[in-house]
Order: sequence, then structure tokens, then C-alpha cells
Amino acid sequence: MFSCLSPGALGLTLDHTDAVDLASSLGFGGVDPDPSYFSSLPSRQAVVEHGDAVREKGLRWGIAGLPIGLDAPAEEFRQALAQLPDALDLLTAAGVSAVGTWIRPMHEDRDHRENWRLHVGRLALVAELLADSGLRLGLEYIGPKTFWSTERFPFIHGIREARELIAETGAGNVGLILDSYHWYTAGESAEDLAGLTDADVVSVDINDARDDRERDEQMDLDRRLPFATGVIDLDGFMGAVRDAGYTGPVKVEPFMKELAEQPIAQVLTDIRERTDRAIGAV
Amino acid sequence: MFSCLSPGALGLTLDHTDAVDLASSLGFGGVDPDPSYFSSLPSRQAVVEHGDAVREKGLRWGIAGLPIGLDAPAEEFRQALAQLPDALDLLTAAGVSAVGTWIRPMHEDRDHRENWRLHVGRLALVAELLADSGLRLGLEYIGPKTFWSTERFPFIHGIREARELIAETGAGNVGLILDSYHWYTAGESAEDLAGLTDADVVSVDINDARDDRERDEQMDLDRRLPFATGVIDLDGFMGAVRDAGYTGPVKVEPFMKELAEQPIAQVLTDIRERTDRAIGAV
Amino acid sequence: MFSCLSPGALGLTLDHTDAVDLASSLGFGGVDPDPSYFSSLPSRQAVVEHGDAVREKGLRWGIAGLPIGLDAPAEEFRQALAQLPDALDLLTAAGVSAVGTWIRPMHEDRDHRENWRLHVGRLALVAELLADSGLRLGLEYIGPKTFWSTERFPFIHGIREARELIAETGAGNVGLILDSYHWYTAGESAEDLAGLTDADVVSVDINDARDDRERDEQMDLDRRLPFATGVIDLDGFMGAVRDAGYTGPVKVEPFMKELAEQPIAQVLTDIRERTDRAIGAV
Amino acid sequence: MFSCLSPGALGLTLDHTDAVDLASSLGFGGVDPDPSYFSSLPSRQAVVEHGDAVREKGLRWGIAGLPIGLDAPAEEFRQALAQLPDALDLLTAAGVSAVGTWIRPMHEDRDHRENWRLHVGRLALVAELLADSGLRLGLEYIGPKTFWSTERFPFIHGIREARELIAETGAGNVGLILDSYHWYTAGESAEDLAGLTDADVVSVDINDARDDRERDEQMDLDRRLPFATGVIDLDGFMGAVRDAGYTGPVKVEPFMKELAEQPIAQVLTDIRERTDRAIGAV
Repeated sequence: MFSCLSPGALGLTLDHTDAVDLASSLGFGGVDPDPSYFSSLPSRQAVVEHGDAVREKGLRWGIAGLPIGLDAPAEEFRQALAQLPDALDLLTAAGVSAVGTWIRPMHEDRDHRENWRLHVGRLALVAELLADSGLRLGLEYIGPKTFWSTERFPFIHGIREARELIAETGAGNVGLILDSYHWYTAGESAEDLAGLTDADVVSVDINDARDDRERDEQMDLDRRLPFATGVIDLDGFMGAVRDAGYTGPVKVEPFMKELAEQPIAQVLTDIRERTDRAIGAV
Repeated sequence: MFSCLSPGALGLTLDHTDAVDLASSLGFGGVDPDPSYFSSLPSRQAVVEHGDAVREKGLRWGIAGLPIGLDAPAEEFRQALAQLPDALDLLTAAGVSAVGTWIRPMHEDRDHRENWRLHVGRLALVAELLADSGLRLGLEYIGPKTFWSTERFPFIHGIREARELIAETGAGNVGLILDSYHWYTAGESAEDLAGLTDADVVSVDINDARDDRERDEQMDLDRRLPFATGVIDLDGFMGAVRDAGYTGPVKVEPFMKELAEQPIAQVLTDIRERTDRAIGAV
Repeated sequence: MFSCLSPGALGLTLDHTDAVDLASSLGFGGVDPDPSYFSSLPSRQAVVEHGDAVREKGLRWGIAGLPIGLDAPAEEFRQALAQLPDALDLLTAAGVSAVGTWIRPMHEDRDHRENWRLHVGRLALVAELLADSGLRLGLEYIGPKTFWSTERFPFIHGIREARELIAETGAGNVGLILDSYHWYTAGESAEDLAGLTDADVVSVDINDARDDRERDEQMDLDRRLPFATGVIDLDGFMGAVRDAGYTGPVKVEPFMKELAEQPIAQVLTDIRERTDRAIGAV
Repeated sequence: MFSCLSPGALGLTLDHTDAVDLASSLGFGGVDPDPSYFSSLPSRQAVVEHGDAVREKGLRWGIAGLPIGLDAPAEEFRQALAQLPDALDLLTAAGVSAVGTWIRPMHEDRDHRENWRLHVGRLALVAELLADSGLRLGLEYIGPKTFWSTERFPFIHGIREARELIAETGAGNVGLILDSYHWYTAGESAEDLAGLTDADVVSVDINDARDDRERDEQMDLDRRLPFATGVIDLDGFMGAVRDAGYTGPVKVEPFMKELAEQPIAQVLTDIRERTDRAIGAV
């Protein structure tokens, strides 16, 4: 595994080139790709060269967002499919090898069975198209009850169903985005991660939770930095990730606005140190 | 359809023979069977004669409870299966033609997919055994959010999934128990009942809801008598039931303790009149 | 229902305008649309006018082929989706209201479960896109054992699974293409068609089978004209279609090369008479 | 793994005590339990002592047949469940730890989806009851096309669907009975066995096939002894079994009547040697 600087996950507004420089100077192992930067470059060759330059700095790519909404209306989904090859070409030109998205854990009208079929069908198709481009797909399940219980039909909000969904797609290039925050809010333990292999995990997020709220009261967008409160058993979580032989990016996604108000180098150094601690590199 | 006196649903403690007499004298069209009374009779022949006597009073049978917990632990379910023939024989001796149960709309550990498979598998088996005895099975879905959202994994809590569950059992003798309270709390409309036939409905419950609570705040065990508040569109509900060509029992299940404190004949007369109004017989 | 002239189904090579004229002069109630003819017209307005002209001759449209392979490789499927709006626009300009395709009843590598998921997912997506254009989709299941048993994994080859597939798409605009030949080779009876409504059937094909072969030896592409041998109970089949309240096209699809060698008017008159007999118009 | 003497699989009629003695004297690692022998013993204690005696000879138990037909009519299945505790108690008294059954790979009336649900539901229930008794269940899929293609609805006839079925039961005590004959006739390779662990395999059968027939012409009950013809890649098969870390019984199930006509010790010595060769102990 390697620590990955993801400005978006940190709520920071950074030019992509600055993010690359900071990731390099502050000792991160990687940085998230920025498709909008890639598309601003004058040619495909320039994107290839940018990827080369990032690698030459010793950095690996994190994951990009899947440029398609899995549960969008059919026509919107169709249009995203029509445009998919161009979007994927930019990513592969830069050397990016994985994209990710999350599963909306509820729906007002579509019940669990209907939503399951929609996700299986669309995921299978998207996964095959990604595989044609050599890309993997990471899927993140969302744990907080304050989120999944807000509409009529709760959907996938735990690891077992997320893994069953992936299995049903029949795809070999789809895995989980494991976030300690969702793992905790879903009431899961290290045991729930047993048996995972590197092929089953595409990205790992580490976060802590507020210590003045019960598990079922935690809010998805109100988290704490890893090791900040100790509410989440990050050692147990990362131990299981290590046992899986995981080799990909590890990042922090706290959704804390305060971070943007502090000196950037200081924030990122702190983030990098917490990530390294989680990885066990320190 | 016919109005059916169900003391249990009304929260009244009545000897079965008193219930039969009251149903007859107060103008109900039927009465719920009481398996414990049946088993207290000295012989199977006595049960047959009791059934004959009830019919001679012009009464039809409502439905009995399914003597088996669909989601019980395996060994408990196995034992109930072992004892099922005797239980069913008592019912058929009396001339009862349908049993019913409800679907628990959530589970703390079993997620939706796991719970679905458990229900399909057990329902299919039980339905075939009931069919061997000439019995139909009614399944009631439970609508209130204050119920289905209380454990980690919400399960069936609307008519679409309930019907899909029944379809997946492949059984021809399983239908719905339609309760206006669940239909309302599930946010359903007459349109959701379109296309139903008499074969799809085994029993109908009519209730109203409190008018000082929002739909998602209604409690399963705190209801109102039909037409009491007008919160539930009983005319729309019963119109759809009528369009389905429904021929079975209609009863009131208010879970109101106050009823037990009032003069029994007065309570039952009121219940019968409200039921008749719903049926449209008045 | 109405008799529909479908040159392709008859194995005849007819210019679309000749087909329209012959359908009109020989007393058919409709004619199949020809998308390649539509796209040869100079403008969308010309297609609209062609549709008007056909209707003015008293003809209704049969169904066009779905311009997308449901089980194509992902990239091919994606490309067909990208081009779908243009293809559908031509059809709707002409006033066509339904398209159809068939389900390949076996696969060498994809087992039943995998194939099911692929079909559910893609069908749901395609159906929603068709619905956006106001089009219905007819699905034909294929009955002959000499077909479905030729690869490792047999797939849908009967009406029950075909209907379950349609139900799982959740689409209101998908129905069956019922072909008496598949109904017969699938070992089905009028009972299997009970409960169908007009909404469940998009098109009807009538054919007979060879009388020198057992049911399981019948070949998909070696059929007989309706009423030719009496092997298939066309009266039972069409009686069930009538009971469903079916209002769409009825055509003959014999896959008999001999037809192309006979005088066209004579062949089509015979076809029209057989179709009318099946419909019961004579 | 250990070589297991299974007289039934060899088509030999042996008293259970003779089988135990021969297994011991001829160097087998285990022997199949014989429930009818167990039930002939005068007491549960005698069964316990028999199990002790077998273990003292250095023998381990193979697997017993599951005393219940998974796809029996509901009433027959119910009766088998009613009697299950007694049957399992005999097995556990003797120290048997696993039972096994096979999946009928086709059905004349029940289509794939219906059959799947029946198997998932009943398997889940039976597996939980077996788990309560500390028993594992082995499931054997059947590969020959000459078998699965003989009725209207082919069912599970390959390892992928067999594993998916097991996964859907949610049971931790159900695994495969892997038979090289089914693996070969299903067109599978060592790759299809990749990723299996000891927990996924309950028993292993090794057989060879006739060398004068194509794969799709092989008959289920006309096999050859392991290594007899070389048609089946037993080295590839057993290599994969070894990679899975498999620790259970390995036996030969040739369905060859000729074996019963040869001197028993000679036959069993040959069988034991072939099994040892497959296991790699020689």
C-alpha cells in the first residue's frame, strides 16, 4: 500500500500540478489523478508525458472518479456510455489503472430488488468496458444509518451485500473501496474483512468518527482525522487490510472544512503522517 | 367479501363460543377460527361438528394463524414442520380454508438478500404443504417506517416486494393480507393495488391512522378505527379491493386497548357497522 | 389483431414499397416497417409522410427489429446504444410503435445465472430508452430442443422464464412475441398462456410443424405453413391469444425457401388467408 | 487427504465390518460410514464404541449419504426433516463429520429458476440443521451432457453454478464433492478450481473416462479407473485439489460392474494404489 494525496477527499482546492509537487515533496507515495487537468492538456501525448513525469517523481496514481452515474436515468446513462471511450482514453494515457464510485444506500421509489437489478446490470456493462481499457473499478458502500434510513427503500449499506453485488457482475476487475468510516458505521469488525485478497480491494480510506455520538447517530459528512478520537478501531481495520495483501492507495477523506483554513503544508504533513501510521510504515 | 369478527385483532379476550354467538347475533358474516378451542374438543369429529354448527349459523371462517414461524431458527422451524400435519388437520376438520402470517420487515444481522432467500425457501415449502391440505396462505407486509427502520437491515415493507416474494415461491395458494394501515404507511395508492385478483388476496384488514402524526411517524400498534380520522383513504383502498373481485374476510385490527374497556356488544356493533360501510354493504 | 405482411419472415425479397402495395391490395391489415427504406428517404419529414401514406392505405405497422444485440460484447452493445436515438427516431417518425428481438436459448460459456443477469440488465436499460421514445419491445423465446441443447449452457426456452425475465426488468413496455412454433416445441399448452393480457403480447407468429418428426426433433428453421400439417394446435393457441384480448399483428414465419419460387401474389394470398383463418376473421 | 474405501462407490457389496477390516489391512486411510450398520447396533453407546474402534485402527471416516432428498415432494421432504435428528445422531455418535449428496442436473417441469430457488431454500435449511449437529455437507455437481440434456430443463452441471448455489445458502458448512469425471465432462480445467480452499471441498472422487468416446458422449455410469485411459487430466485435477489445501477423503467411483467379479483384495489393492498415486503419496 502507499499513502495517496487526494485533495478532493480532503476538501482542499489545489491545482493538480501543485498537488503533484506537494505529494512529492511531503513524502506521499501517490496522488489522485485529475481528469479535468488531463483534458486541459493540448494533446494525448501531453497526457502521456504528464503521467511519465508523475511517475518519475516516484509517485503512483490513486484512483479517478468513474465518469458515469450508475443509477442515472437511462438516457443520461446512455450518453455517459457514448462518451466513455474518450474519458477512459485520457485516464489510460496518463497511466491511471483504476476508477471508483460509491453505491447510493437508499432510494425513495426503487425497492431493494429493483435497485439491485439496476446496479448488477449497469455495473456488469461498465466493468466490461473498463476491462477493455485495462481499468479496475472500486465500489464503496456507505455505512451510516443517518444516510441509508432517510428514504423509503434502504439499499446496500454493508460489506456482505457489496461483495455479493460485485460477484454477481461476474467481473474480475471490480473490487471494494474500503473506508474505515463505513466499516465502523456498518457495525462491522475485522472478521468481516477476513478472506479478502488484493484483487478484492481497489482503494482504502481511513477516517475516524466523532466521540460524542453513538454509531447510529454518526453523520456521513462529519468525520474526524484517523487516530483523532479512537472511536474507530483503525488498527483492527488496517490489520485486516494488510492480511488481504493489499497493495493500493490509502487516503484520508475526513470531510472537515477546517482543513482548508490551515496552512496547506502543515495539513498535508499531518495527513501523510497519519496515513503512514495506519499503513504501518512508521 | 364479508365482515369477519376477529377478537384477537380487536384486542378482546372472548371465548371462541361467545365470539361465534356474538358474530351471529350482531350480523357479522364470519368469525376467526380458534385452533386452541379446536384442540380442546374431545375428538376430530367434534371439530367437524363445530365447523358445521358455525356454518349453520350463516357464518364463514376468517383465517387462522400459520402455526409456524417463517424466520425461526432452523431447528425450531423443523419441529414446527414435524407437527404441522396435526395442526392443519384440526383446521381442515373445522372447514377452515386459509391461514396467515406476516413478514418481519427488518433484521439486525440478516441482510435483505439473505432474508429474501430464507423467506422464499421456507415459504415455498410451507405453501406446498398447505396446498396438500387444501389451505391458502395469506402474507402481510408491514408498512410503518417506525418499525422497519429499527434494525440494521430493513426487509420487505411494501406491496411490490411482497408480491415478488409470493411469485418467487411459485405457489398458487399464497396471496396477500392487505391492511389499509400498511398500505398507507408504505406510501401506496390505489394504483399499487391495480391488477390484483381474488386469487392474490387472502384477507383484508381495515384501519385508520392517527391524525396528529405524519405518515413516517405512525406507530404499528397505535392505530384508529376505520373512518375515525380520515387519514387513510379507505374508499380508495376498498375500491381497489372491490375491483380485484375480492371475496374473502374483512376485519378491523386497531390495536386499541380502550376497546376492551367498553361494553362488548356496543364495541362489536360499531366494528361491524364500520366494516359494512367499508365493504359497501350499507 | 390484424394480419401483417412480413416479407422477411416469409423469406421473400420485396422492395418495401412493393410490400406496402401488396399488403394493401391483397387485404392484409398491416405490414412490417423497413428501417433501411426509412433511412434511404431524403429527410425525416419524408419518413413522416411515408408513415402517413401507409396509414392512409388502411395499413398498420407490424414491428421492426430491435437495432441492438442484447448479448453482444460490451463494446458493441455500447456502440449500438450510442446510435440508438437516431435509429429510434426514424421508427417513431414513421409511426412505428414496437420493436422486437429474440432470446438466444443457449450459450457455450455463460451459464444460466450469468446469462440471466446479462439479459435482465441490458433489457432493463434498453426498455427504458425505448419507453422514452414511446416504443414497446417484444421478446421471443425459442423452443426447439435441437437448438437450445447445442451448447453447454441452455438458457430461456419457455414462456415461464421469458415472463419472469420481463418482470425482472421492471419495464412496463416489454412483452412477448408469441410464436406457435416455439410454444409447441416448448411443450406448452393453452394453459400456459392463461392470464396474459394485451399488454403482455407485442406480436404473434403462427406456424405449423413437420408431421414426420417428433417434437424434440423439430428444427427451428424447418417449419410448415399454419394449418398445413395440424401438428400444432393453432386453434388452441389462437384461442388463448384471443382470450388475452390481443390487438396487435399476426404474421407467418415459416422459413420455407420454396415460397420464394412461387408467384408472389399467390403466395401472399395464401398467407393472408391462413392468417385470417387463424385470427378468426373468416 | 487420505484414500478412502467406499464399497458402494465401487459397486461392491461388503459387510461394513469387512470393509473396515479390508480398509485397515490394505492400507487405506479411511472408510465410508454405513448408517444401516450403525442403526443395527443395539445402542447409541455401541455406535460410539464402533467409531472408537475404527479410529483405533488408524482409519478416518469418509462421508455418509445425506438422509434426505433435496428435491423430494414437500411432504416427503417434511417427513425426512422430522426424522433427521435420529439419523444425524447415529452419525455423530460414530464420529462422522460430513454427509454428501448430488444435484440432479435437469428437470422435466421445473425450469432453472424454479429449481434454483427450491435448492437454495432447502439446502439452507438442511445445512443449518447439519451445522447444529456439527456436520458438513458435500454437494456434487454432475457433468455429462448425456445426462443433463435428457429432460426439458437442464440445471446446475458445472462448478461455477454449484459454487454460487452454495454461496447463496449462506452456510459455512457446505462445500463441493469434486469428481474428476464431472469436472472433465463439464469441460472444466484446473483454472476452474483455482481459489478453492479446504473449506470449499468436502470430498474428492477420482475417475477416468472411456477413450473411445467424445466428451459430450461420455455416460455418467460408464467410467474407467483412475489413470486407466488418460482421457482425464488427473494430474491437473489433483494438483488443483492439493493447491486448495484439501485434507479430506479421496475415493474412486467407477461404476464398473466388472470389479465385483474379481478377487476383492486384488481389486481393493489396485484401487488403493491408484488413489495413493493420485494423492501423490507414492
